[in-house]
Amino acid sequence: MIKAREEIKNIIPYVPGRPIADVQKEYGLENVIKLASNENPFGTSEVVKKALVDYINGGLNIYPDGNATDLKEKLSETLKLSPENLLITNGGDEALTLIAQTYINPTDEVILSEYTFTRYTDSSTIMGAKINFVPMKSYRYDLDGILNRINENTKLIWVCNPNNPTGTLLTEKEVLNFLNKVPKHILVVYDEAYVEFAESEDAIKDAYNLFKEYPNVITVKTFSKIYGLAGLRVGYLVGQPDIIANINKVRGPFNCNVLGQLAAINALDDKAFLKKVYENNLKGKKYLYEVLDKLSLPYCKSQTNHIFFETPMIDSKTLFEEMQKRGVIIRPMKGNYSRVSIGTMEENQEFAKTLVEVIQNFK
Amino acid sequence: MIKAREEIKNIIPYVPGRPIADVQKEYGLENVIKLASNENPFGTSEVVKKALVDYINGGLNIYPDGNATDLKEKLSETLKLSPENLLITNGGDEALTLIAQTYINPTDEVILSEYTFTRYTDSSTIMGAKINFVPMKSYRYDLDGILNRINENTKLIWVCNPNNPTGTLLTEKEVLNFLNKVPKHILVVYDEAYVEFAESEDAIKDAYNLFKEYPNVITVKTFSKIYGLAGLRVGYLVGQPDIIANINKVRGPFNCNVLGQLAAINALDDKAFLKKVYENNLKGKKYLYEVLDKLSLPYCKSQTNHIFFETPMIDSKTLFEEMQKRGVIIRPMKGNYSRVSIGTMEENQEFAKTLVEVIQNFK
Repeated sequence: MIKAREEIKNIIPYVPGRPIADVQKEYGLENVIKLASNENPFGTSEVVKKALVDYINGGLNIYPDGNATDLKEKLSETLKLSPENLLITNGGDEALTLIAQTYINPTDEVILSEYTFTRYTDSSTIMGAKINFVPMKSYRYDLDGILNRINENTKLIWVCNPNNPTGTLLTEKEVLNFLNKVPKHILVVYDEAYVEFAESEDAIKDAYNLFKEYPNVITVKTFSKIYGLAGLRVGYLVGQPDIIANINKVRGPFNCNVLGQLAAINALDDKAFLKKVYENNLKGKKYLYEVLDKLSLPYCKSQTNHIFFETPMIDSKTLFEEMQKRGVIIRPMKGNYSRVSIGTMEENQEFAKTLVEVIQNFK
Repeated sequence: MIKAREEIKNIIPYVPGRPIADVQKEYGLENVIKLASNENPFGTSEVVKKALVDYINGGLNIYPDGNATDLKEKLSETLKLSPENLLITNGGDEALTLIAQTYINPTDEVILSEYTFTRYTDSSTIMGAKINFVPMKSYRYDLDGILNRINENTKLIWVCNPNNPTGTLLTEKEVLNFLNKVPKHILVVYDEAYVEFAESEDAIKDAYNLFKEYPNVITVKTFSKIYGLAGLRVGYLVGQPDIIANINKVRGPFNCNVLGQLAAINALDDKAFLKKVYENNLKGKKYLYEVLDKLSLPYCKSQTNHIFFETPMIDSKTLFEEMQKRGVIIRPMKGNYSRVSIGTMEENQEFAKTLVEVIQNFK
């Protein structure tokens, strides 16, 4: 028996949304829709597909450019930043683990909100951090509550804005006010995976620039959401060169695959695709609000591509199973809370129809 | 200033072989060949390319199957193992870091050979291990030397067989004799990235079964070499279910991209491609031996797809630069040692011609 590190003893591997094929097999269903993982309902840009097919025909035998030179250059132009401010990762997920591996010691504490992305907890726990959860206020991050929990051992604060799974937003004013009060030796990880879906004028749309004013902020970005590249795993970090250089020491030499890099470069240019996805999301959100209003189900207004809602008459595990049996996969959360991704209008309608059917049985 | 972990202070990021395009640009060369990263000179199987193109046309917006169910199933059939013995990784590289993250504590020591894959050192250092290097004997691992270095703090031993960069082999008899003497609470990581190129009858061709007899052994395998999928990043681990389950706690939920999984499944079946690559390698190796013999340059007989050789008249950095100027990228090692990957016959001939040219100037 070989002893694993104490730190990982209580980690429960992440349970991802179930693949469609699995559910089809289990229930003998032909049509199954998946609104469980906040994926892009419009697939991938045609521009991206063409670039990938051309590349594949040349072969995949050559290692990726470990420095992701071309992707960094493209991002530098797009964001008006230096390549030294950027680090490319194997999806946003890897960005989180790399940060934790670079900065968290076993004696450190981290602070995060309840009801936020669960990978913050696992990444911190693996490195031995003490985790401080701060309760939410009206389904939003309680920034004052977080500030109050800072102590001499605090090393890092995780912030997801807009937040997964609640979809709620911290406004620009709130974030800046918060950052002004966080001591500069504490790292603030600002994850804006969903910001491209935000419609509010109070949202910070270019939070990747925060590090200029606040050198202790590092921003996490992803190509998995509005860019429709979840399958290829591309994310990146934006921050001070010294922070980026430290994290780069921990990064594996070929962490981001060659097609991911190529897809991301091409995805940045297809503005028409991004517009289509954004507008569909807005329309779908409005439609789903109406559906939930009609059913008198409480929900959070969302600045993302998913809606967090409550079914007081039925717990989320049961709801999940009843929906799944009928071919609609959503994401159960704690208690009576669920999360549904906004799909195409047809998928949203299928979700609505099925939800009505299930809820009626539990009234 | 945010303090990074002490453990990463002295880590120097891995320097990968230079991309061809870089060298073309710098020296204004049209034709450049790269024999620096032990890549597959025949590209990727046509079967694999077709499967990928078909998939891409469906879109890449859906997250990969985090469990890699289909790939594990395919590997289980191929290797006659249970899926519980397998863990799919983002290239063999990630397999090494995941093992270190799961098992190495700051008070632990690891043992490895000098002149072996450098990522063993970095992965261990990041987790705070004390590294014990054991000098080689005639360019081969000194297994007795390794056994002699075991002490009460030893947690893990890294073994690369056949070895990168020397290409040398530990025979089956030597490995089993060694494993019989290693205490069972010490993890032995057995990396056989290059075994598919081994021609020796003394090589262990199915070392992925070692864990059955030796529960403390975990085997690292890759699709980057004979399968020609380096660009897509797919590797895997084979071991006892409890070891696999522990490492799985540390693995990110979507570590291996969807095209990598799909490519690997299809690559396993194209035996004709594997045969072609193997036979080309054998032929290229013989040819390069003759070239090196004629130049009276010392080299190691190789059981891999690369050759480790010495140029007593010229240090490896200078050789690298002189070769590169002329459009041939190889890998400089310490002192006067270099490593060249075996390419297509045309590439091997180009390498030979250029080497002769460069060496003549230094006689």
